[in-house]
Amino acid sequence: MSAAQPERAAAGGREGLAAGRAASRAASALPVQIDRTSSLPLPVQLAGALREAIDASLVRPGEAVPATRELSRRLGVARGVVVAAYEQLIAEGYLAASQGRGTLVHPDLARTHVEGEDRAVAEVVDAAGPSALDAETTTEQGLRGEASPAPLAPGVPITDGVVGSAWRAAWRMAAADVAVAEVVAPLGDPVLRREISEHLRRMRGTSRAASDVLVTAGTRDGLWLLLTALGTTRGRNLVVGVEDPGLPSLRGAASRAGASIVALPADGEGLDTARLPDGVLDAVIVTPSHQYPLGGSLPLARRRALLAWARRNGVVIIEDDFDSELRYTGTPLPTLAALDDPDTGVVVLLGTFSRTITPALSAGYLLAPAGLRARIEPVRRDLGATVSSVVQSALAGYLSSGALRRHTARMLRRYAARRDLVSERLAGAASVRVRPMDGGLHAVIEFSGAAASARRREAAAVALTEASGLGVQALGRYWQRADRDAGMAGLVIGVGGDDDAAFDAALLRLRAILDEV
Amino acid sequence: MSAAQPERAAAGGREGLAAGRAASRAASALPVQIDRTSSLPLPVQLAGALREAIDASLVRPGEAVPATRELSRRLGVARGVVVAAYEQLIAEGYLAASQGRGTLVHPDLARTHVEGEDRAVAEVVDAAGPSALDAETTTEQGLRGEASPAPLAPGVPITDGVVGSAWRAAWRMAAADVAVAEVVAPLGDPVLRREISEHLRRMRGTSRAASDVLVTAGTRDGLWLLLTALGTTRGRNLVVGVEDPGLPSLRGAASRAGASIVALPADGEGLDTARLPDGVLDAVIVTPSHQYPLGGSLPLARRRALLAWARRNGVVIIEDDFDSELRYTGTPLPTLAALDDPDTGVVVLLGTFSRTITPALSAGYLLAPAGLRARIEPVRRDLGATVSSVVQSALAGYLSSGALRRHTARMLRRYAARRDLVSERLAGAASVRVRPMDGGLHAVIEFSGAAASARRREAAAVALTEASGLGVQALGRYWQRADRDAGMAGLVIGVGGDDDAAFDAALLRLRAILDEV
Repeated sequence: MSAAQPERAAAGGREGLAAGRAASRAASALPVQIDRTSSLPLPVQLAGALREAIDASLVRPGEAVPATRELSRRLGVARGVVVAAYEQLIAEGYLAASQGRGTLVHPDLARTHVEGEDRAVAEVVDAAGPSALDAETTTEQGLRGEASPAPLAPGVPITDGVVGSAWRAAWRMAAADVAVAEVVAPLGDPVLRREISEHLRRMRGTSRAASDVLVTAGTRDGLWLLLTALGTTRGRNLVVGVEDPGLPSLRGAASRAGASIVALPADGEGLDTARLPDGVLDAVIVTPSHQYPLGGSLPLARRRALLAWARRNGVVIIEDDFDSELRYTGTPLPTLAALDDPDTGVVVLLGTFSRTITPALSAGYLLAPAGLRARIEPVRRDLGATVSSVVQSALAGYLSSGALRRHTARMLRRYAARRDLVSERLAGAASVRVRPMDGGLHAVIEFSGAAASARRREAAAVALTEASGLGVQALGRYWQRADRDAGMAGLVIGVGGDDDAAFDAALLRLRAILDEV
Repeated sequence: MSAAQPERAAAGGREGLAAGRAASRAASALPVQIDRTSSLPLPVQLAGALREAIDASLVRPGEAVPATRELSRRLGVARGVVVAAYEQLIAEGYLAASQGRGTLVHPDLARTHVEGEDRAVAEVVDAAGPSALDAETTTEQGLRGEASPAPLAPGVPITDGVVGSAWRAAWRMAAADVAVAEVVAPLGDPVLRREISEHLRRMRGTSRAASDVLVTAGTRDGLWLLLTALGTTRGRNLVVGVEDPGLPSLRGAASRAGASIVALPADGEGLDTARLPDGVLDAVIVTPSHQYPLGGSLPLARRRALLAWARRNGVVIIEDDFDSELRYTGTPLPTLAALDDPDTGVVVLLGTFSRTITPALSAGYLLAPAGLRARIEPVRRDLGATVSSVVQSALAGYLSSGALRRHTARMLRRYAARRDLVSERLAGAASVRVRPMDGGLHAVIEFSGAAASARRREAAAVALTEASGLGVQALGRYWQRADRDAGMAGLVIGVGGDDDAAFDAALLRLRAILDEV
């Protein structure tokens, strides 16, 4: 259904070649210019101009950009300038290297512009949005109805247990409270900050003062806030390491905040701390409690190595603690932040209520040691609070009533049952393995066998699941390295969504597809 | 009460000199460094390092930074590098030039880090926040109670009429709707976008499609989103013009988004379009419908000149339409955006519900022509929605019920009555004039007479109103030019706040202060 898909499926055939030639003609007319009076390095300028052209759809996902030799001649710059710009944009996910067709605008780009997790869902909304807005006859119900998420889209929680008496009471009180709540404290409602501090203590083994907590509009708002604080005060572009494989949406958000992205190898236990470079990075984004998408947890030895490396190199560790509360096997490890010093530490934890409650809240938090807060807080004050104080007040009420803990306990049982159903429905499928997972909202289905054949099956399965509107993702899209890891191919599916029957029907359809490819 | 105030009050005396010397000693130990291998120009690096030092409170508001000669010698750079960095930071409001004490960290900085408008208020919250968080005995009520705003702080609306049956119904429906609302569309709830489009048509004479509207967390979120879209895709720092006098908070937000700030002269009719520079700016922030703080409206000839200049220079006009709905005399002029082309235009309008409803919503909107939306929308998709879909749904319900129009009509009468009371209470005060104002939440009290004496009275009056906790602002703080405009001195006061009796009592106290200085 996506614009990118026909290109990808046909990449080797005649159609693909014709499309490639046409695209290349279009691309060579790209209005890319270099300003020699600017103080910015040429590769940075060129990368900026290409980003702008891609964002403005002057070249589209799947289309080729000019060959480095051709573009360097046209611009009158060294070929190395073009190569450096392309490498940066490949790392950011704007471009992709392809075999036989040179460098392309990344085929997934139209989709990774939307949060990776929710992209299948968000696409439906956005596709429905503008046209529906213009249709006078569309009713509110019609518009909303089209936004129901694909049944196997990763990152979508089960939310049907959220609305209850505690939830309604929290909002009723918050909406009545507007007169006193009219002042939005830039760092967050003091009561909510205290409740989040308590949440971290009980659910994440992390005991820190409420003053270390800032309220955010979610993980990406917190990431952006932190990178802005580190970047603008340092007066230069940041270099940020990310796990590879990892979540494309965080790479995109970091890149939007002006950072250059460096891929760092990760495996089933998380970031490979033996291969961390010295002297290169300003910050690193990690998922130590639940590596995304592979599902492992960073062992204590690696945690200590990571902290020591970060302190030695002056690197800020950004701990993306996106779903660690939702662990249904064993005890969750405490956060990395819990090992850190609350005053002079280097770890900033980003948390969210998108998965434990609902993405509809657009609310999360940031936990930072005092030394880093001194840089972050002035930025938040200058740029203002992003979360309505009505939301903050309702959330504080919901947390203080204990409703989130009860809701989480119920959800853990349901997610575990969904995971069991995945194993049951896929049992016996040839050359397929459901990767062990201790929690969270997704499952990874690996294809075994030779790497080339596993990748072919991945591509074929994704094409079929897309046609069925299942919202399944290719495992390969989480890698930045062109070679990914030997033999890793498969699918990522969500185990959330409110409709149990639709979920089971989607699994049965997926099983049929797996048997077919 | 602020840290800066004793410094300022004593600036001419012995105490001030002693403090200046001590500060200078401390400042010369500032850990400011230059990286000669960096591609960034030295003044940009130095400005960045100084911002970082100021943000980290290594030099405090009111303290002197090293003399340019001293710092250039210490760093081994040309003195012009230091001068250029200081000039940039003065334009941004980080530093201020003082007579006799050299260059200081801006005395108002601790306070302008908070939104200029709400700073008196936000300071109370933040001051109460951390300490209150630590006090185990503090109750929720106690915490909230301390947040009540200063009675004459500008920018605080009257909110006691917001909570009513329409408001409660809107929130009840939105909170019950969480299951369907679980997907947050990055550009905003389609229903809310349609309602805002309708709001702009009815209240602001601006007829544009719902697809031109994006939902934001308020003016600064919209500003930041736009500047990020313009800046990161261009791959270089932006140069943004702002009105002088103008709102310090927008200067601060633009600067945080990586922009260099250029002050553009404005007068009682708004931006002086005869003095706009060619070939310098990427964007300009204007308040055409209600110049802040002076209160004028940009005449049609200037509007046309501004648009023509912007088109000629490729400049994006950022229309800060912060309170134009609240005009109680005559008909509000349509927006500047209404004169612009919806496809190829250059005007991006930033709107907010902070003043028409309550800042507690943290909700606003951005209206942009199609050509600019193509750059803005990918950034929003990458960085995610900032406004909870519960808030968006409630706001859509509130707007569609007609409640905002009814509320606005009621508020206009109350603000007009408040303004009349200001004139009445200050009538007959010597050398004082209440500036005519057609709407909005503030009033400007000008001091007549010789410039030097008027400024002395301004300083004395602000010191006394601060001691009384009134939240009154010095008119001078809205200027960036050190010389401001000849003879302009006075006070800016808010006419909002829920408590009629407290407002009148504050006016009587203000009158006594005016009679005293």
